[in-house]
Amino acid sequence: MRNTTAEIQVLAFDIFGTVVDWHGSISREISAAFPAVDADAFALAWRAGYQPAMRRVMAGELPWTLIDDLHRMILDEVLVQFGLTHLGESARVDLNRVWHRLDPWPDVVQGLTRLKTRFILCTLSNGNLNLLIRLSKRADLPWDCILSAEVFRAYKPDPRTYLGVAQTFDVPAGQVMLVATHHDDLEAARACGLKTAYVERSLEFGAHHPKDVSPRAANQMHARDLLDLADQLGC
Amino acid sequence: MRNTTAEIQVLAFDIFGTVVDWHGSISREISAAFPAVDADAFALAWRAGYQPAMRRVMAGELPWTLIDDLHRMILDEVLVQFGLTHLGESARVDLNRVWHRLDPWPDVVQGLTRLKTRFILCTLSNGNLNLLIRLSKRADLPWDCILSAEVFRAYKPDPRTYLGVAQTFDVPAGQVMLVATHHDDLEAARACGLKTAYVERSLEFGAHHPKDVSPRAANQMHARDLLDLADQLGC
Repeated sequence: MRNTTAEIQVLAFDIFGTVVDWHGSISREISAAFPAVDADAFALAWRAGYQPAMRRVMAGELPWTLIDDLHRMILDEVLVQFGLTHLGESARVDLNRVWHRLDPWPDVVQGLTRLKTRFILCTLSNGNLNLLIRLSKRADLPWDCILSAEVFRAYKPDPRTYLGVAQTFDVPAGQVMLVATHHDDLEAARACGLKTAYVERSLEFGAHHPKDVSPRAANQMHARDLLDLADQLGC
Repeated sequence: MRNTTAEIQVLAFDIFGTVVDWHGSISREISAAFPAVDADAFALAWRAGYQPAMRRVMAGELPWTLIDDLHRMILDEVLVQFGLTHLGESARVDLNRVWHRLDPWPDVVQGLTRLKTRFILCTLSNGNLNLLIRLSKRADLPWDCILSAEVFRAYKPDPRTYLGVAQTFDVPAGQVMLVATHHDDLEAARACGLKTAYVERSLEFGAHHPKDVSPRAANQMHARDLLDLADQLGC
């Protein structure tokens, strides 16, 4: 394991699910604000609109759109679905910003702090910069740099995002490792020559929907969480 | 003073001269490596090529070019001027990276740490991301986000850079304050509606070339250094 990772300079982190618990954070806000609503289903429905919305942008059906704006489009549909159409504009604006208030998984701050001693740490998320910066500031996430689809004007899994990280840091793709809890993201990164680390987040979709987190051989690393990743990388 | 700054959310920092001491850092490296060379003049000559090189890019005479590459073009000319043409490629690559190793002024880390408690702190430099990230990591600069001409594909004083910061954070221009030690930079930011804070760096050009740092009324704030700025902003 150490041989293939010895040359790594940059760790690029997926955010939603890998670093922050979107399902838990959104469920908690929805439960508190609307006790009669199925908060688990609400969170899942909101997130489920994410990939189709990005595909519409990448297919040219919508112009380039920040994730904050895609989240808002999806929210307006989800509110209909859950009988919450009475919500006014300012309440919708505030609710949409729940994505700026997502809580990190408990291992994240300590894990990143350890990893930062040896690697350059950046985000590589489809979230827009404003979202990522406010979320990171609130949660004290010690990034060296916040990179986003917004910088590369393309969403993952577009190769421009993965290769964009290597180009930004002026290193070969093999010196960048993507850390994520989604196999499609990791696979696309490997196709560009990046190294990959899978992080188990078995409760990404909530306690009622455990995820299969069994290892896949194609990843250079497999870690329970970021503390385990730091252990394996000798930080 | 506090009235005009009460609504500020984001402090955007110029880097070369304002946050880091390019003249001192480069002079020290040159003195150590080439004792016979006039290190003061070498640092000034390298920096003097900077504005003309960016103007060539913005005029379309050169394609979009990262500052690392402009620094290298200028370095190759400066080496001729100082009789150092014997330097080989790898020595030139390493010397060019002195811009990644610039030391911050002594007040910077503490000043930024205090300012970060109340404001979003970002860089707004013509330096490319790789330069800014490596410099910041080495010096432990606690940015919330690193923004660069590279992100906006335009160098300061192009309005796209100043307005780009406000757009990135989804705030009106008047909620962003540029912090810099150069009046032309601050003036261009004010023309875009940003607030401005001038920071005295009287020794930016070295001990032999003190700079006029007298206040100008157009700036909302005038600070001796970042600790003074934090004091004035109540951080």
